[in-house]
Amino acid sequence: LLVKAEVLQRTGSFKFRGAYNRIGRLTEAERARGVIAYSSGNHAQGVAAAAALVGAKSLIVMYSDAAAIKVANTKALGGEVLFCDRETDNWEDVTARLAAERGLTPVTPCDDAHVIAGQGTVALELAAQAGEMGAVPDIVVVPCGGGGLTAGCALAAKAVLPNASVYGVEPMGFDDTAGSIAAGRRVSNGADAATICDALTVSIPAAMTFAINRRLVDGMLAVSDADVLAAMKRAFLNLKLVVEPGGAAALAAVLAGRIDVRGKTVAVICSGGNVDPAVFMRALQAGMVDGE
Amino acid sequence: LLVKAEVLQRTGSFKFRGAYNRIGRLTEAERARGVIAYSSGNHAQGVAAAAALVGAKSLIVMYSDAAAIKVANTKALGGEVLFCDRETDNWEDVTARLAAERGLTPVTPCDDAHVIAGQGTVALELAAQAGEMGAVPDIVVVPCGGGGLTAGCALAAKAVLPNASVYGVEPMGFDDTAGSIAAGRRVSNGADAATICDALTVSIPAAMTFAINRRLVDGMLAVSDADVLAAMKRAFLNLKLVVEPGGAAALAAVLAGRIDVRGKTVAVICSGGNVDPAVFMRALQAGMVDGE
Repeated sequence: LLVKAEVLQRTGSFKFRGAYNRIGRLTEAERARGVIAYSSGNHAQGVAAAAALVGAKSLIVMYSDAAAIKVANTKALGGEVLFCDRETDNWEDVTARLAAERGLTPVTPCDDAHVIAGQGTVALELAAQAGEMGAVPDIVVVPCGGGGLTAGCALAAKAVLPNASVYGVEPMGFDDTAGSIAAGRRVSNGADAATICDALTVSIPAAMTFAINRRLVDGMLAVSDADVLAAMKRAFLNLKLVVEPGGAAALAAVLAGRIDVRGKTVAVICSGGNVDPAVFMRALQAGMVDGE
Repeated sequence: LLVKAEVLQRTGSFKFRGAYNRIGRLTEAERARGVIAYSSGNHAQGVAAAAALVGAKSLIVMYSDAAAIKVANTKALGGEVLFCDRETDNWEDVTARLAAERGLTPVTPCDDAHVIAGQGTVALELAAQAGEMGAVPDIVVVPCGGGGLTAGCALAAKAVLPNASVYGVEPMGFDDTAGSIAAGRRVSNGADAATICDALTVSIPAAMTFAINRRLVDGMLAVSDADVLAAMKRAFLNLKLVVEPGGAAALAAVLAGRIDVRGKTVAVICSGGNVDPAVFMRALQAGMVDGE
């Protein structure tokens, strides 16, 4: 089992990769006006950090229930945070309106080729680093929210690891990519789903990521909150890594036996580590027994 | 601030380095009889892992109040654990007796040149990795228990970073190395001290490490439990690393302002990450405020 520790990436998740690959391509005029993004928090931090690096301002639209650590880190990275209400507002609409009003360039988390390509560098690095260890992954397992990381990694893996299978992992109840692939068109989750994986609470796949994932992903898996909490604790005990719920989804799928990995070299992406202490404590308390 | 993340080392602490450098030199006859060590848990895991790698058995003497995760991991690595009582037994005596009775080779944590040299590879790597980033540490800060890591790192740092100052960090009340350097001879802690840093609860410096440290260490610092818990939480929030109390001592000294680091490039060694969930939760709850 190989673990790609994106929790150690700048801003604590893979999202910096795609954001920087997009924001690094702004024209001078776009850079002067600034960027805008909506995000549950990891894309927010990636955008804020990348914008700061190129000297641009960033405005981030979040729902008011975002993880406190993600809000605090986004502000610390120089992002301006604007909250909207999950019940009454649609953050895509709010973002589009503000972008038009203020001349800001939207940096979308999924429907952007440069963002997807940036996220795909995770799988390029993974393949190279596995190669340095003399290992060739048979299976690559990727947490899947809007599908940007999954699409980027699927594109990259199919190029550099042509014999590897790529699996995306969604929280149970938020399996919109699985449902969309099965239906052959983009379909939404049920409205009443809940998950501890705040980074993966997307209601419908993005058009561009869906077009890629339906063609390249070998299968979709689903994990429960209990699977995720157990994987977070296992990462604490054995990897010494802080992994957030959504970031632990791929590890959880493997550890919970949601895919047969016997005799295989499996690479999982631990995609982020921005988790509030209270949530992390839930993981530590999960199944607490003597010696753990 | 550069962080050398020895929590990511095999067995979750730097101790594997020294243990392997010693156990890799066993004669065939010594290997066949096996090794013995006393340890609060990190040296135990290093010895058990290194012994297993060369096909030798390992017997580990622990006090019965050892951290549960360290006991469990030592056993999982193939070590046989024998508990003795901190109140009535001296683990060095128990170890010496069993070594003689059973023909086992003792692997001491500090009074062994090969062990100290092994621990010193932390500073060699640190210097090389800093160099790759274009950085040259002005100050190297090292957690100090028996003094093996401090001695090894001081030896290595003085060779490859000749302009760097090296500081050791002890828990308040367990500042036997500081006291011994001040006294010019090895002196013990007071008997009534207590600390959360289970990996650093040594009562008197080892002879060999003291001889090195009194000559090479530029200064000793002391940290409180509160300093350590705050540093563990900071590592959780910003580094996404799980650091155990003793492993966080050097980071704690810097973050708590126990040394003036203004304008300096400072390297701290986070030396281990084997911490029980209940202790880690104490750190997460420390100074809990909105956004953290």
